[in-house]
Amino acid sequence: MKGIVNFTPGPSQIYFTVENHIRAAFREGIPSLSHRTKEFENISRHATNGLKLLLEIPSDFHIFFTSSATEIWERSIQNLVAHKSLHFVNGAFSKKYYEVAGQLGKSPKKNEVLPGHGFPNDVLYEEGIELIALTHNETSTGVSLPMNFINQFREKYPEALIAVDAVSSLPYPQFDYSKIDSLFFSVQKGFGLPAGLGVWIVNHRCIKKAEDLLSQGFSIGSYHNLPSLLLHAKKDQTPETPNVLGIYLLGKVIEDFLRRGIQIIRKETEYKAAILYQALSIHKNISPFITNPADRSNTVIVAQSGENTKAISQHLLAAGLQAGEGYGDQKTTQLRFANFPTHSKEQFEKLVDELEKFK
Amino acid sequence: MKGIVNFTPGPSQIYFTVENHIRAAFREGIPSLSHRTKEFENISRHATNGLKLLLEIPSDFHIFFTSSATEIWERSIQNLVAHKSLHFVNGAFSKKYYEVAGQLGKSPKKNEVLPGHGFPNDVLYEEGIELIALTHNETSTGVSLPMNFINQFREKYPEALIAVDAVSSLPYPQFDYSKIDSLFFSVQKGFGLPAGLGVWIVNHRCIKKAEDLLSQGFSIGSYHNLPSLLLHAKKDQTPETPNVLGIYLLGKVIEDFLRRGIQIIRKETEYKAAILYQALSIHKNISPFITNPADRSNTVIVAQSGENTKAISQHLLAAGLQAGEGYGDQKTTQLRFANFPTHSKEQFEKLVDELEKFK
Repeated sequence: MKGIVNFTPGPSQIYFTVENHIRAAFREGIPSLSHRTKEFENISRHATNGLKLLLEIPSDFHIFFTSSATEIWERSIQNLVAHKSLHFVNGAFSKKYYEVAGQLGKSPKKNEVLPGHGFPNDVLYEEGIELIALTHNETSTGVSLPMNFINQFREKYPEALIAVDAVSSLPYPQFDYSKIDSLFFSVQKGFGLPAGLGVWIVNHRCIKKAEDLLSQGFSIGSYHNLPSLLLHAKKDQTPETPNVLGIYLLGKVIEDFLRRGIQIIRKETEYKAAILYQALSIHKNISPFITNPADRSNTVIVAQSGENTKAISQHLLAAGLQAGEGYGDQKTTQLRFANFPTHSKEQFEKLVDELEKFK
Repeated sequence: MKGIVNFTPGPSQIYFTVENHIRAAFREGIPSLSHRTKEFENISRHATNGLKLLLEIPSDFHIFFTSSATEIWERSIQNLVAHKSLHFVNGAFSKKYYEVAGQLGKSPKKNEVLPGHGFPNDVLYEEGIELIALTHNETSTGVSLPMNFINQFREKYPEALIAVDAVSSLPYPQFDYSKIDSLFFSVQKGFGLPAGLGVWIVNHRCIKKAEDLLSQGFSIGSYHNLPSLLLHAKKDQTPETPNVLGIYLLGKVIEDFLRRGIQIIRKETEYKAAILYQALSIHKNISPFITNPADRSNTVIVAQSGENTKAISQHLLAAGLQAGEGYGDQKTTQLRFANFPTHSKEQFEKLVDELEKFK
């Protein structure tokens, strides 16, 4: 597998510094470090402080560790919804978030459009919505919600909490934290780390809601309910024995990202996305799946490759480039390309060259 | 930290082969491997098949991956209890399992004895118990449930499911699977792996119970409910993106254990426990915390060290031996020694020698 650049949108190509960080971790005894030590607290604080800097998270937000973003779908519904959440569904992952709410006994509502499409700008108001669940980047189709779409909800639903699933887009997007209450991701996408860690960012309104639900007699879960996560996070700890190595590696990769600079990471992401979308737009055999440029993700780029899918994939692989398969039903008709900080400009230029060579 | 033998009962000293396995994992591209590939399915099957061999698990049991044993406390209550579980509480961890049931809105019952004590053999019958929750090895105090204690419940409560938390004892104990329905552990103890993975073993009665609860309208959680875990495990997959590297390493360490042989691991565990308990029993300044030999754990050995605690700990550390601290209130008066497969006979002989030198 070494020597091949992996463009699968998750688990992604590992960030190039990770293997060295793991070696250092073994030298420092991290894999057997107890999570009830000062050393662990330092490691945990290093990761959360770094993340606050990198993503410009305001100081009144808290950062918690879970095992995956899938877990956060469940925890966010459990802790933030008594009855009714509102989901914007335009693909497999936003749909799963909606389904989780039903599985937990809530009565979720949804605004649904066809996969690969954005939502109409006019959002109808409905009474009693407690949580608005937005999937910033639909990993299955490569459609992304424009920031002004996300930012409209605070004014329209001032009572509701707003949760943003940014699994396959962070650290690239720049959110306006005054317009959202919760943000989450998992580390095996844009952060280029081995899977097994989710990160949940919440403000005081989320904590308050969980406490209210608890006092009203709702079950909000056990070790990973928000009050329990907060109690431990205040001491830079976790309720359970966490993925200590994963938290250590996250802190180290964030350090690498900070050294590179988030503005440079953003600019490079946009450059790489632009050249790939351009190549797809003028290609004879493939095209961007998302037709409306305003809806196109810069971090997961999906190509409609139809009957050429297998041939293109093999052509790329022969050049050391592993395209991601289309999601679900689109496995044999689309290709997906992750555009994460681990993917260099040179790798994207080579990808574009190879696509151009395919006639 | 290198060069020091860590006897903390968890996260434990890493098994000595793990660092090499991680190197191989990077060579094979495991950290960025998609969990929706044949390669992942092979890795997952390698771990579960190995575990079945190692722990002699009957073929009608299923093996599922979670993020921690703490998660399994929650999932087992959610999936196996409508109203009433019965917990045997004799320390901090068995108590937490009991508390989780209350947090999930159930009405748990408990039989409680003082920390460090075993339970009376006569168990009173109570109507309507759906799950009997047993903590095989109380990591906080080093008390272990005798097998005949565990095995009595099937006959006395034929309707109830029997779940055994074997977090800090496996792979050492040999369970009679006809007497239990569910068994679980986390990998950072006896398996000597980095934390971030729990393993949940269940039989068809557990699956049936979860399905019954679901059909009665109970919420049994979302991605990690038993039907969802089973659906994916049948394809050697997981509902969410799991800790792929952790599952790979588990399979590799199980392979190492199988090569060594479970009988040899068991015999060595008993030898190491015997010499340490013997040394504690004749020591002038310290003694075994568990007074009744029948209740003593062979895998977590707790010493009552009183006012000598700090001095002994420093004496051992000077010899390269890191004792585990006492749990909670006993932090300054007890020392805990994990006796896992990663700890060699030679290391235990050195530990005993150093304890004898301390006067």
